[in-house]
Amino acid sequence: MKKSIGLHPLPFPAPVWVVGTYDGEGRPDMMTAAWAGVCCSEPPCVSVSVRPSRHTYDNIILNECFSVNLPTARYVRETDYFGLVSGRDRDKIEKSGLSVKKGRLINAPVIREFPLVMECRLIRQVEIGSHTEFIGEILDIRAEEGMLDSDGAVDSEKAGFFVLFSGYRGIDSLVGDPYSVGKELV
Amino acid sequence: MKKSIGLHPLPFPAPVWVVGTYDGEGRPDMMTAAWAGVCCSEPPCVSVSVRPSRHTYDNIILNECFSVNLPTARYVRETDYFGLVSGRDRDKIEKSGLSVKKGRLINAPVIREFPLVMECRLIRQVEIGSHTEFIGEILDIRAEEGMLDSDGAVDSEKAGFFVLFSGYRGIDSLVGDPYSVGKELV
Repeated sequence: MKKSIGLHPLPFPAPVWVVGTYDGEGRPDMMTAAWAGVCCSEPPCVSVSVRPSRHTYDNIILNECFSVNLPTARYVRETDYFGLVSGRDRDKIEKSGLSVKKGRLINAPVIREFPLVMECRLIRQVEIGSHTEFIGEILDIRAEEGMLDSDGAVDSEKAGFFVLFSGYRGIDSLVGDPYSVGKELV
Repeated sequence: MKKSIGLHPLPFPAPVWVVGTYDGEGRPDMMTAAWAGVCCSEPPCVSVSVRPSRHTYDNIILNECFSVNLPTARYVRETDYFGLVSGRDRDKIEKSGLSVKKGRLINAPVIREFPLVMECRLIRQVEIGSHTEFIGEILDIRAEEGMLDSDGAVDSEKAGFFVLFSGYRGIDSLVGDPYSVGKELV
């Protein structure tokens, strides 16, 4: 028997992405986003939703680009911090102890210590309500070689990514193979 | 040292949601989506991206609503099947062995056996490229009582949800508490 459980908090796994931008004076900022995901295959695009009050909101509109930096469990403290406070009035990067450098293809910072980064060019801005959704075309994905398998793909066991679901939680073992386990029903 | 790893497949955890719709003759259909996520808090909204070739695409536009059904590992086979074939020329529900009923608030089917369902009203349609993003306002979330904790919230350990990340993978143990673990850096 199901029952209505209200609309907050949303009760299922969500991504934990750190969005990197520069402000008008070239200062880097990072903001943790969970309202985010992939939204298109060709071109490959991601969306991140941001409240207009956030420093990141102004920065994305200013530079028309952003980076997405994927944290591992080792950096859960820094990742949580990036979601707790605004970069308007403090240097979150310095405080975090992490270091950044400018992206290769866009005017946005990427986090050196995080093992996977994406560079995205803003292609659409959708006003919804409390949040504005920014859709970015992924121009490049770079990963630490140590997290790749022998085929050059990210090894999910080595990656150490986590999701948000009543806490930050790691990724567990395989329960089935996509485009495979369902074939017996076809 | 990071290296570019190409843009396919996208190398990080994505949701696995089953999107429910009726077609013009009232036949229920289900499609598995991974390009999906939350995109706004107030009103609470989700987005699901669908190729125009899919039966679900026509159905969402026709009814201006859709359900989101969250599978557990027990139903990984049925979930994979819903992503493998089109509902244009076959009854995927019957073949899956699952059962559906009409949503309470919208004209879209929900899966009885899945423990968590959301009913969504279409509020925006964004053409991106290969995929169209449908943004739906969440009108109701219902969950099986057996997956709730003593506060009435979904218990992540009991839930059994999984994500897509080089395979369908379960959710592991806690690595940190949100809005808490980062406070020492504030």
